[in-house]
Amino acid sequence: MNSSTVSTVSAFERAAGYRRQFDASFEKYFAALAGDLNGAHLGRFPPRCLELLAQLSLRGGKRIRTTLLYEAAALVTREEIPGLTEAALSLELLHSHALILDDIMDDSPMRRGGPSTYYACREDLPDHPQAALGLAMMAGDLAGFLALRVLFDADLPADRKQAMLDVQLGVTTDTVVGQVLDLERDVHPREGEEGEEGLLETVCEYKTSRYTILAPMRLGLLAAGQDLAEHEESLHRYARLAGLSGQMRDDYLDLFGDPDLTGKPSGADLRAGRHTYLTRELLAATDGNDHTTVRAALADPDCTPEIIDRVRDIAHRHDVHTRLQATIDRHAHAAAAEAASWHRHWNSEAVALFEQLPLWNTRRTH
Amino acid sequence: MNSSTVSTVSAFERAAGYRRQFDASFEKYFAALAGDLNGAHLGRFPPRCLELLAQLSLRGGKRIRTTLLYEAAALVTREEIPGLTEAALSLELLHSHALILDDIMDDSPMRRGGPSTYYACREDLPDHPQAALGLAMMAGDLAGFLALRVLFDADLPADRKQAMLDVQLGVTTDTVVGQVLDLERDVHPREGEEGEEGLLETVCEYKTSRYTILAPMRLGLLAAGQDLAEHEESLHRYARLAGLSGQMRDDYLDLFGDPDLTGKPSGADLRAGRHTYLTRELLAATDGNDHTTVRAALADPDCTPEIIDRVRDIAHRHDVHTRLQATIDRHAHAAAAEAASWHRHWNSEAVALFEQLPLWNTRRTH
Repeated sequence: MNSSTVSTVSAFERAAGYRRQFDASFEKYFAALAGDLNGAHLGRFPPRCLELLAQLSLRGGKRIRTTLLYEAAALVTREEIPGLTEAALSLELLHSHALILDDIMDDSPMRRGGPSTYYACREDLPDHPQAALGLAMMAGDLAGFLALRVLFDADLPADRKQAMLDVQLGVTTDTVVGQVLDLERDVHPREGEEGEEGLLETVCEYKTSRYTILAPMRLGLLAAGQDLAEHEESLHRYARLAGLSGQMRDDYLDLFGDPDLTGKPSGADLRAGRHTYLTRELLAATDGNDHTTVRAALADPDCTPEIIDRVRDIAHRHDVHTRLQATIDRHAHAAAAEAASWHRHWNSEAVALFEQLPLWNTRRTH
Repeated sequence: MNSSTVSTVSAFERAAGYRRQFDASFEKYFAALAGDLNGAHLGRFPPRCLELLAQLSLRGGKRIRTTLLYEAAALVTREEIPGLTEAALSLELLHSHALILDDIMDDSPMRRGGPSTYYACREDLPDHPQAALGLAMMAGDLAGFLALRVLFDADLPADRKQAMLDVQLGVTTDTVVGQVLDLERDVHPREGEEGEEGLLETVCEYKTSRYTILAPMRLGLLAAGQDLAEHEESLHRYARLAGLSGQMRDDYLDLFGDPDLTGKPSGADLRAGRHTYLTRELLAATDGNDHTTVRAALADPDCTPEIIDRVRDIAHRHDVHTRLQATIDRHAHAAAAEAASWHRHWNSEAVALFEQLPLWNTRRTH
């Protein structure tokens, strides 16, 4: 076993440890919330609204943001740091907020291997579609405000809390911009035009890089007392490259992933007519009948599993999976190289995780 | 002209002054936002999202929260107070957030005499109903987060800002609870059961009293440096009574108001099957054919203007308007009496407005 393997193993053990530790805190948070939140016990719908939010939130996901947060703090210190748990809760609540709203906008029945919050509400209220929409929207709304509340209530020095809230408030509006650009991309795909590359990458920058990578890292470093100014550029470069690689892997998994592992039906993006890095590759790589088949699938909300299978065959025949994976790998290696430069000033063990993470991400299955 | 008339006139002149002053600040805020907000200039949808939010926000409304905020500060001092403008912006942005989401949940085409944000989005994107829903949801989401951001960015001493953010964060979750209870009320009206009075009043407490009256007053007093602890009970009583009276007047106007003044079609609540103080009175006052007509109208989303007219006739014949108005007046007088007790410790001129406001509200036309 060489030293790089050792560091990888221990990095992943640490990540699993964070996840267990965080999941316990998250459960405790929701158990207390029912008592803490004004009016949460009233009637039937408010407790149900909390329950729906807790169910989605506790059904997990990869907790990638939590890992990045804890390990970013560990770049500076392995001491216990006040505010770190609250920052993790804030990140995951904000993520629940985004997921609940995304699933309404996309009319998605599934999320994290269970019903989306929107579909759970529709099942609760089959004869009241508007009330079901309203209940789901309110569960999402609540999650967004609780994300800020939990950080606001943290027992932290005023200036540190101010800096951390500043990051999270920035994330909220960045994410709206990313989401709105994402809607624009679906409505006006312009896939043949010059603007497309820019739009796809801007969506990724706002919806993934800043939100999933940069914000958790900033919060972790701030909680550990680090002054961010001199590191901003490198963090941003790392987040952009790792985010791009991660987004492309997500897009890849939509067609080439195992639905049992991803928790989503195969070809969901395709069926929704979403223009992703995968569909861009597909459209660019094909012509003639294959191109027509791909384009027809993209425009068809009722596209069957058989058509998805046919599109997958076309993709394989044209080596779309290989080329997309190569781009995923290239960005991941560039991100790892950026992280390698941090050995100069930060704890090497934690830096190693930031080097490994984008590479691990290139083979991620869900 | 007696002294009470003088004080009423000057109170309303002051309120009109606040509105003009605030509207100018709000316009300036939106003009600057396009430059301040990260990514707001990208593509077509982000600028449109901001524009939609600005249009709804600047189309006014009564600015009742702003008046209460400024006049609550004036209970303590007439000096210029830092943070008051930011608090007003925060209140009105949070109100835009609530209105945008309400109109999605209620599928309402009109708001403030123009198209609701949801319907404006649907007009923008007639062939993309999900994207239109998404864009409207994002405009609402943005408004909610900006409401907190603007207060967070205010140049205020840390403890005062902390107290004011605490109020606004409390409002956000209170409003979710109120909204969710409101959905419950529509889905499970239980109008014959014991629980109904409680549910109606709890919705009013959470959706109106705390949000529209208590929060602006708390923010104004906090900005003016007042310690709230000893006043909480009286403020809460005032807010409950004035809120109840105001909510009942809103319900009253749904059937007895002039649509040209309210900016909403007559009988919108009725058509939506909403159980309000008005429909409770209507159902309690009628029997036989009249009762059947009212009940049928309540359950009918396609209920015509003619049926609304018939329900209004029934209401008049059974003196529903008189009885509801008497209850509105009773609560308003009780609120005014509560405010009168404030002359002991606060500026009389400002106290007078809080005495007048609930009484004025009893004859409000929009």
